[in-house]
Amino acid sequence: MKAELEMDWSKCLAQRTGLMQRSALREMMKSTSRPGIISFAGGLPAADLFPVARVKAALTAVLDEFGGQALQYSVTEGLPELRDWIACRFSNKQLQVARENVLITSGAQQALDLVGRILLEEGDRVILENPTYLALLSAWRPTGVEFLPAPCDARGLLVEKCKPLMKRRPKAIYCVPNFQNPQGTTLSLARRKRLVALAQEHSMAIVEDNPYGELRYIGSALPNMLELDARNLADSAFDSRVIYAGTFSKVMMPGLRVGWVIASRAVIEKLTQAKQASDLHTGTLSQHLAMELAKQGFLEEFLPVLLQHYGQRREAMLAALDKYFPKSATWTEPEGGVFLWVTLPKHIDASQLLPASLEQGVAFVPGEDFHLNGEGKNTMRLNFSNAPPTRIDEGIKKLGKLLQNSATKNQAK
Amino acid sequence: MKAELEMDWSKCLAQRTGLMQRSALREMMKSTSRPGIISFAGGLPAADLFPVARVKAALTAVLDEFGGQALQYSVTEGLPELRDWIACRFSNKQLQVARENVLITSGAQQALDLVGRILLEEGDRVILENPTYLALLSAWRPTGVEFLPAPCDARGLLVEKCKPLMKRRPKAIYCVPNFQNPQGTTLSLARRKRLVALAQEHSMAIVEDNPYGELRYIGSALPNMLELDARNLADSAFDSRVIYAGTFSKVMMPGLRVGWVIASRAVIEKLTQAKQASDLHTGTLSQHLAMELAKQGFLEEFLPVLLQHYGQRREAMLAALDKYFPKSATWTEPEGGVFLWVTLPKHIDASQLLPASLEQGVAFVPGEDFHLNGEGKNTMRLNFSNAPPTRIDEGIKKLGKLLQNSATKNQAK
Repeated sequence: MKAELEMDWSKCLAQRTGLMQRSALREMMKSTSRPGIISFAGGLPAADLFPVARVKAALTAVLDEFGGQALQYSVTEGLPELRDWIACRFSNKQLQVARENVLITSGAQQALDLVGRILLEEGDRVILENPTYLALLSAWRPTGVEFLPAPCDARGLLVEKCKPLMKRRPKAIYCVPNFQNPQGTTLSLARRKRLVALAQEHSMAIVEDNPYGELRYIGSALPNMLELDARNLADSAFDSRVIYAGTFSKVMMPGLRVGWVIASRAVIEKLTQAKQASDLHTGTLSQHLAMELAKQGFLEEFLPVLLQHYGQRREAMLAALDKYFPKSATWTEPEGGVFLWVTLPKHIDASQLLPASLEQGVAFVPGEDFHLNGEGKNTMRLNFSNAPPTRIDEGIKKLGKLLQNSATKNQAK
Repeated sequence: MKAELEMDWSKCLAQRTGLMQRSALREMMKSTSRPGIISFAGGLPAADLFPVARVKAALTAVLDEFGGQALQYSVTEGLPELRDWIACRFSNKQLQVARENVLITSGAQQALDLVGRILLEEGDRVILENPTYLALLSAWRPTGVEFLPAPCDARGLLVEKCKPLMKRRPKAIYCVPNFQNPQGTTLSLARRKRLVALAQEHSMAIVEDNPYGELRYIGSALPNMLELDARNLADSAFDSRVIYAGTFSKVMMPGLRVGWVIASRAVIEKLTQAKQASDLHTGTLSQHLAMELAKQGFLEEFLPVLLQHYGQRREAMLAALDKYFPKSATWTEPEGGVFLWVTLPKHIDASQLLPASLEQGVAFVPGEDFHLNGEGKNTMRLNFSNAPPTRIDEGIKKLGKLLQNSATKNQAK
């Protein structure tokens, strides 16, 4: 086969492609999208809850109002009305967001990718929660950045433990403060404030990734670090060392690929240049659809539906874990979002459990991949938003049985 | 103002952001989208020709068939049916394209950006047509690549003149063979063959960007270099040193942001990893819409409409140039696409003409920006696809008058 190739691409590709890897998660999602499987693997919203008729009507409304312009090229920054709507939604007494502080991106993933492109260069250091969001690693690794893992507990990042890392002069810290991917934990208010103070003291940027913040089932919302750090400017814009990434993927529909960055104007300007070179602009029809739905009050109606269903699913999973999982396993009890995190007894390797689990028709993500230092072999990430409660019960039961067997086998050895 | 900033982002941003520039073109497009202006500036299709009712019906059909799945996350490579459709469209006796040779991208711009990301690194050299596509420069410049400009004439790139550049061991050549942006010229068959041979001899990749190829008003289609270079493999895939970028933007609707790459599987695999890190996947609804339209035979119906209108507009512009432009100006007569290229007398600087032209309500793009070596001050790019024939006549008349005045003024000096 190799001999047949007339060009050996492995020699021709840029060296940094060696740093690119297919995310194991995305690869597995392919096999888990097969019908019949109970998937706790992806971070997928429940597509059966999407109000398809409503989307159809909104698309018709958009095309009636804007005609061919809704299908035409549009400006790189994003639709002005949509930027205004986001600016307005994020503005409050503490924070004045202007249109110029907002860039529309092709999902939050592009927001993170563009931030990496304008902020990081070879040899820079970035602090990450350990474990952290897998696709952030894929996006930033090719810049040649060095990742500094920081430990976490049930209240999120252990900010005090970041202090020794400051000697390495990190340029930024990446953080998912609400219902973190993968652990489902939430950074406490006290820690948010300490992190902002630490960033100020050490001239470090904070990249605050908040895809799940609005999916809170219990407890009260905490202020974003963007808000805690921002300093309002005279002309109703603000300045901040926080670069904030948001998205409609988890509260509307991910297939639209509409996300955004909120940041200081100097940052938005550079991100816009990078975005322009990257894909000219985010889909015009997608942006119009998001805008139309937002204008119609879609989020105010749809969010309660999501909260109700996902809240039930969360409870179903917690109850099933209690019922079926061995007593030696522990798990997080997230206040929101779509993931929880299971820690198994030390001797169980979750990735070795996966083939048998898939055979039983249950998918999950082994936790090791989310780690930066080879830890977490005995951990797994479970998504609870994608399957209805009965299926969750069924899936956790099967997983629990596998775990019990695995524990027994180990004792037998 | 500066004193108010609590973070000096200019110190914090990656050095390569200095290589990023807002494309003058995109910036100008903002001002030229104001109502009433006759724009020869962008590369915009005519939005008034988009069959909006047809799109509405197709969206309804997609949502009826796929429901919430059309709004859900989807795989990075793109919808399998759409990849198959593209593979099939590009396959012929000379070239067998398999699904694995196709990656769906967010427009052809992202295809070019991703190619830069996997192929190029600091110090690499790339041959470009001079003048060339502006946003290619924006996408590839931050990699730290060195651009080697190659001269062109009325039949496109002067391939023979590339030979001396081979001493610099370029990694790739970027080329728009059909109705080039900005010049509107077409690379002759003989030169395509010579370029392929040159690339083979010097182990160089060819990045073939073909957004306009199907918009041919006169003459016969020429084979793509992908086809000229490809070597079919046993399993109905192929291998080639050509990386081909295509898009629905010019033959369907650009607001969907659906483009593609066709290349050897090893290249597609690396591009897929880069795409995954970049934005996870291209919009699901957009891809379904493109697929539904393609399946319905939309291109077979819509392309003749475009060819008729754009062909008329091309003729209207050529006639108006003949009528209103000074005899000292020359221009290309493209066989297709959306641009033609005007060369003015040496003493006229097109960019100095622009403010007066905009004041008269006519926009164009000065040609200097498309050049790599400060040449082309006396050139301009004119788009003929976006305005109807009467408006084209009106706009060229105004531009012609300005040019005549400018010529007179110069004589008076």
